[in-house]
Amino acid sequence: MSKIRVHVFSKIPNLSKEIQLALPSAIVYDVLPDNTASLKDAEIIVGDFDLMIPHIYHLPQLKWLQGTWAGVDKIFPYINKPLPFLCTRYSGRYFGQIMSEYVITQIVCNERDFSTIRFNQQQQIWCQDGKISDYRVISDLTIGILGLGTIGSWIGRCLSMFGAKILGYGRKTHLDPAIDFLSSDCYYSKSGLSDILRKSDYIINVLPATSETTGLLNGSVLKNCEEKKPIFINIGRGNIIKEDDLVQAIKNGWISKAILDVFEVEPLPKDSVLWSMKEVAITPHIAATSQARHVAEQFKENVSLYLENKPISTAFNFGSSY
Amino acid sequence: MSKIRVHVFSKIPNLSKEIQLALPSAIVYDVLPDNTASLKDAEIIVGDFDLMIPHIYHLPQLKWLQGTWAGVDKIFPYINKPLPFLCTRYSGRYFGQIMSEYVITQIVCNERDFSTIRFNQQQQIWCQDGKISDYRVISDLTIGILGLGTIGSWIGRCLSMFGAKILGYGRKTHLDPAIDFLSSDCYYSKSGLSDILRKSDYIINVLPATSETTGLLNGSVLKNCEEKKPIFINIGRGNIIKEDDLVQAIKNGWISKAILDVFEVEPLPKDSVLWSMKEVAITPHIAATSQARHVAEQFKENVSLYLENKPISTAFNFGSSY
Repeated sequence: MSKIRVHVFSKIPNLSKEIQLALPSAIVYDVLPDNTASLKDAEIIVGDFDLMIPHIYHLPQLKWLQGTWAGVDKIFPYINKPLPFLCTRYSGRYFGQIMSEYVITQIVCNERDFSTIRFNQQQQIWCQDGKISDYRVISDLTIGILGLGTIGSWIGRCLSMFGAKILGYGRKTHLDPAIDFLSSDCYYSKSGLSDILRKSDYIINVLPATSETTGLLNGSVLKNCEEKKPIFINIGRGNIIKEDDLVQAIKNGWISKAILDVFEVEPLPKDSVLWSMKEVAITPHIAATSQARHVAEQFKENVSLYLENKPISTAFNFGSSY
Repeated sequence: MSKIRVHVFSKIPNLSKEIQLALPSAIVYDVLPDNTASLKDAEIIVGDFDLMIPHIYHLPQLKWLQGTWAGVDKIFPYINKPLPFLCTRYSGRYFGQIMSEYVITQIVCNERDFSTIRFNQQQQIWCQDGKISDYRVISDLTIGILGLGTIGSWIGRCLSMFGAKILGYGRKTHLDPAIDFLSSDCYYSKSGLSDILRKSDYIINVLPATSETTGLLNGSVLKNCEEKKPIFINIGRGNIIKEDDLVQAIKNGWISKAILDVFEVEPLPKDSVLWSMKEVAITPHIAATSQARHVAEQFKENVSLYLENKPISTAFNFGSSY
């Protein structure tokens, strides 16, 4: 492999170190947020999309930007004309696994009342009352997944293995046969949204932010949930429901709980009422994070393709649909 | 199915109701702890082993005792001569699934510092520092499982799916080929215990209480862990290590944390130092509990076998090995 130069501009801990380990002969430069002058000389950048926004049209030498994020919704609005370089997403092939870990953990912590168990330990109380021992297990649950891409499919397959009944919602009119854990009568599209909401004990949103998904659950859409009062887990994007409408859905008792990793505005503002609602659990957009070693591993593979002038499947540019 | 009479003597919530639902034509009697006189008339009992102990040799009409527990270690010492009735365990076919849910949840809560995330929510703090975003995922972990029966195998298969490297410890000298998620070089027996302890990031004990497993990790056995300082998860039985030796292993830094669901003495006594050690997480023997609907479902199947005089695989008696 020829001696490539790579500029790393990222908040991911140890990313330049991992890239150096993955590509021992590469020359790796660390770009710091307060000293970005060296970006001007960069031919290849591995960068976080948010950090790259102010720079994307000011990179005279750049041939390739390898992003470190799966989602392009943050940077996309700033790409208003074609970029004179190759731009690739981090596909996050592990995101399905990592999101599934998160989903199972949140479900089990909720169903088995782990927070009470922890409180009891502090009080030295051995107590098996209520949900602590008499809990629903995953095989008792009907779980609706909004979004059946790589991540949603992984989560569905995983929860199926634990015996959950999975319902899936996607934008295609018919179920993709590759989604082998779902039968076609458990697949919903467009007009089926109210059905899937009505039937689920948990609703898991993994949809990306697009014009089609913005506000999908706004207004009184979640009223469909009022009978089963599901728990809503959002690990997709905050655009799917306005915060005010979500708060109202909880106050109306349409959903019994919201476990939220993504928000309309991030970081979630200090004055959001979500922070202090007892029916809300907040995690700071960490359900799946880009881990240095995973990004480095994928970058290494992409470098091989790049040097051989082969296409990289996660390339995008102005005018792409995502 | 003929009209059978079933006495239910159990602390499991709703068990008699679920049995009635599973067997609509059965006559179901609820036996209360403070009024056990009706046991004398019972032909078939579905009962918790601990409740049954004082009664087992005083049941003149009994033909079949269906236990509600998988473990027989509590009742076994009291069976000192053959019982004049059929005795079957609850095999807990879902226990593998349910234990796996617990294991994944404990690993993820620990790796991603969920307790800090919860604390941060109370303070309205959005913080991605440290392990909150820079966490190990299951695929980064080497996990040693002590005990490769139904439950251990389920856990291993499940964690494999999440990409963990699994090491297994069992009493057989060679790996059972049915354990398809394990290669033979990842299997350890007897003298291999120190090796598996040395190599693992997590040690999960699911071994039952037998004379062979009592004290297996006593003394300085866990010194083998001192390099990788694994987290020890005990969901098997408390007999595997003396509490004092476990406390010492933590104080010596041989293991970095203990996540304990089972103990030498249960309930864990108020004065145990384990309650207040910051490296210890305690759950009150709930990693997998017998759920009423699962017990009822298995009992229903066993009733069919019983009425046809067919063997039930979980039968045991005086002199059984377990």
